[in-house]
Amino acid sequence: MNREKLIAAVKEQMPERRWLHTLGVMETSVILAKRFGGDTEKADLAAILHDYCKYWPVQEQAKIIRDNALPQDLLQFDKELWHSHAGAFIAKSQFGIVDEEVLDAIRYHTSGREAMTLLDKIVCLADYMEPGRDFPSVDRIRELAEISLEQALIAGFDSTIAFLLAKGKRIYPLTILTRNDLIQQIKT
Amino acid sequence: MNREKLIAAVKEQMPERRWLHTLGVMETSVILAKRFGGDTEKADLAAILHDYCKYWPVQEQAKIIRDNALPQDLLQFDKELWHSHAGAFIAKSQFGIVDEEVLDAIRYHTSGREAMTLLDKIVCLADYMEPGRDFPSVDRIRELAEISLEQALIAGFDSTIAFLLAKGKRIYPLTILTRNDLIQQIKT
Repeated sequence: MNREKLIAAVKEQMPERRWLHTLGVMETSVILAKRFGGDTEKADLAAILHDYCKYWPVQEQAKIIRDNALPQDLLQFDKELWHSHAGAFIAKSQFGIVDEEVLDAIRYHTSGREAMTLLDKIVCLADYMEPGRDFPSVDRIRELAEISLEQALIAGFDSTIAFLLAKGKRIYPLTILTRNDLIQQIKT
Repeated sequence: MNREKLIAAVKEQMPERRWLHTLGVMETSVILAKRFGGDTEKADLAAILHDYCKYWPVQEQAKIIRDNALPQDLLQFDKELWHSHAGAFIAKSQFGIVDEEVLDAIRYHTSGREAMTLLDKIVCLADYMEPGRDFPSVDRIRELAEISLEQALIAGFDSTIAFLLAKGKRIYPLTILTRNDLIQQIKT
């Protein structure tokens, strides 16, 4: 499927507002890829597909995770985490994406993971800071992104963790491992 | 060793200021044990010993962890976590404490753990809220402790996690698992 058709297929899956977010992530991913030496084409492709399942009924997202041996612990945590893994699954099975780097960037764009690849970092950070985002620390994240993917991502995960603390919600352990790993990376 | 001699031995290990903290934890542990149906004698004993190694040179604490197959991952995280495991080890080897419930309450009073026992919760919470403690959310923790060990402990761990976020420090994963588990406990 060419890029144009892929974009049309994605657009159909979400409300206009979320499509504008996807456009923002596409634009920001490419900017970050250029800034930090990433692959702009892969960044664009992962960004196009990253939220493909975001507005699907949660039961459908859960079913994909259950039926395809995706990480089952996700189902014990926030539904916000589900669309990333479901999205990577659909990207492969429905759109024939076989590049594991692109699939991983979709798969881990919400939780992060230890030893994130450059592409993982680019798409995850773009998701935090695309122009449409507006939350207390977003300007600080954009500022840090001028100089360090890792520092900007740490600030992004900090905002997620602080949000979950304030809401009294459980924190997905992989997000803590990711943040710990990024802190270790900037130390060494 | 009787209680008086034990107290004298503990007092010698720390500066006056920290001894006052231990006295506060002893008093608060007994109050919480009475309030929530815990064993007051065990709470008192665990509280007496909980900070035994706190002011030992960190290299000595690390050596105890290394030489006695205590959790090695501790050494990758904040030194603040070390004295609890080292303290439980000394309580057993030097003072002949064999009650695993008491040893666990010493061992996990900083990190917490999943499925904390009643005694674990009492000593850990007393450590957060004893009368000498003074930090932004301590009054909220004391307030919650009037009605729920779990809710007060969640607020305690929230304060630790928020502190580590602000300092840009890594978070010990077990503390996240503990908080997640406590949230699950109050839900069910």
